[in-house]
Amino acid sequence: MGVIEQYIQHAGEAMLRRYQPREPRLLYDPIDYVIGLGGKRLRPALCMSACHFFSGDGKAAEAAAMGLEMFHNFTLLHDDIMDHATMRRNQPTVHLKWNENAAILSGDAMMILASQMMLDVPDTVLKTVQTIYLQTALEVCEGQQYDMDFETRDDVTVDEYLSMIRLKTAVLIAASLKIGAMIGGASSRDADLIYQFGINIGLAFQLQDDYLDVYGDPETFGKRIGGDIVSNKKTFLLLACQKLANSEQKEKLKYWLHAADFDRQEKIDAVVALYDQLGIAVLSKEKMETYYMEALRIIEMLGIELQYKDALKLFASHTLFRTK
Amino acid sequence: MGVIEQYIQHAGEAMLRRYQPREPRLLYDPIDYVIGLGGKRLRPALCMSACHFFSGDGKAAEAAAMGLEMFHNFTLLHDDIMDHATMRRNQPTVHLKWNENAAILSGDAMMILASQMMLDVPDTVLKTVQTIYLQTALEVCEGQQYDMDFETRDDVTVDEYLSMIRLKTAVLIAASLKIGAMIGGASSRDADLIYQFGINIGLAFQLQDDYLDVYGDPETFGKRIGGDIVSNKKTFLLLACQKLANSEQKEKLKYWLHAADFDRQEKIDAVVALYDQLGIAVLSKEKMETYYMEALRIIEMLGIELQYKDALKLFASHTLFRTK
Repeated sequence: MGVIEQYIQHAGEAMLRRYQPREPRLLYDPIDYVIGLGGKRLRPALCMSACHFFSGDGKAAEAAAMGLEMFHNFTLLHDDIMDHATMRRNQPTVHLKWNENAAILSGDAMMILASQMMLDVPDTVLKTVQTIYLQTALEVCEGQQYDMDFETRDDVTVDEYLSMIRLKTAVLIAASLKIGAMIGGASSRDADLIYQFGINIGLAFQLQDDYLDVYGDPETFGKRIGGDIVSNKKTFLLLACQKLANSEQKEKLKYWLHAADFDRQEKIDAVVALYDQLGIAVLSKEKMETYYMEALRIIEMLGIELQYKDALKLFASHTLFRTK
Repeated sequence: MGVIEQYIQHAGEAMLRRYQPREPRLLYDPIDYVIGLGGKRLRPALCMSACHFFSGDGKAAEAAAMGLEMFHNFTLLHDDIMDHATMRRNQPTVHLKWNENAAILSGDAMMILASQMMLDVPDTVLKTVQTIYLQTALEVCEGQQYDMDFETRDDVTVDEYLSMIRLKTAVLIAASLKIGAMIGGASSRDADLIYQFGINIGLAFQLQDDYLDVYGDPETFGKRIGGDIVSNKKTFLLLACQKLANSEQKEKLKYWLHAADFDRQEKIDAVVALYDQLGIAVLSKEKMETYYMEALRIIEMLGIELQYKDALKLFASHTLFRTK
């Protein structure tokens, strides 16, 4: 995974170097803060890596990569307001540290800064890169809207869920790869293929998150198991369970979803018992595997050197066979 | 003003025609609603008019014009959340009609839609148009931040106020003209000149608003006089008054600004009396005239046909000598 790891490192430093704080301070301080919170810098790393795969050097994609990271952090900022979140990366969210107006307006400014960074690409690909970027940005909003819509529904299907996470998280990973590829001179075919690779990885990654929340090892996972169960979060596991449950199991599940007062561990144990009865763990792993295998199949078809195919394969397996 | 009037008409229809509503409905309904509220469509009209002045036809600037109107309405939507406004064009604001999350997210989507429309310009000017648009968008955010900063300060100067309204409102009018000019093939010199014309018109327009709120004729103005005084809004008039007042006048003003219980008309009369003692009405009109004269001077320098210079002059005088 040498190339991708190299760009994860690079992206971390570049992000902090490129952004120049300005007046008024109250507009830009929250932006500094959010960027300074860090993060894996996955999207910019994938963008520059894809550029590298097709041209030998990811540098030409650096501005666009930073733009994608800035855009990603803008979505987190506004999502945190809408979710009334208190913490982001173990630090207070912007609307708590400052106030809600600051979070709204600084978020808006971040979106604009991201778009400015996305302008810094070769003229030959400017329009197509902007087109993909803006279409993706809109899809992320649509995904967030579906996610909010689902909160008040009790009939969300597995397919609807997968469509939502495709929009809310997978398309940005896919676009990061495609934009990098285009800046690197990839053919349309290869650019579209690497986009599909990103979609499959993104979906597998989210299913992995859902799975680990229930079945991950708390020691390695670093946080308490079952948070999604406790909060009734509509994950693949819960939705698959609702779909497959018989009437008795449906009643049991309904009881726990609607219970006002409950012992946390008791609820987790009860729901996990239902999952185990229905083979949900295996189902989830199988679904992840489907996306993973598709991602591997796509890698083979890419017009890139063998060493770069290997880098993508290592990245895919490292992402999907992590225990935390 | 034939050309500009023609495009005001055109912009109104084009705005509703161009935008295609989509799923999810909860993301796009608030956007439909905001666009449907109407408005003068000033910015798109100026954009297409400027294009017409330099090329004979404003059609090529229609997409960008619609983008500017979509962007303008996005700023109104987010500003209304931050100001806790209840009404917009005599209708409930989006955060009241739906909820705050909808207002935040639909606003984000509007900003993205606006940027997509701004891509639909000739390739030769794509990068420069995008650059001006995004820089302007950022300046509007900065203006809004300064406006919010000023709320909690009691030492705001007239110059700071003028800088703030330049960013918050004038730059978008200026950019609308400049972008239209560029699409119409104007030289850099003419594009920059028409931008400066827009800045001066924008500043004059805001000062006019401030003036009419106190000295406008309620019959023609259509709303109660003195709303800004009652709400202690920091306008040119109030700030100029604070700057020129002697200690006794300062005390009187301070009393009324801090009065918790007061008779509305009594407060208005008292503050207007102070304004009259200090010649604030004349000062405001003189300041407006300075910007207006500069705008006229710039029109003369533009490389456009006489009939179009006349159209701009008529527009400027109509805007600035309105009584409501």
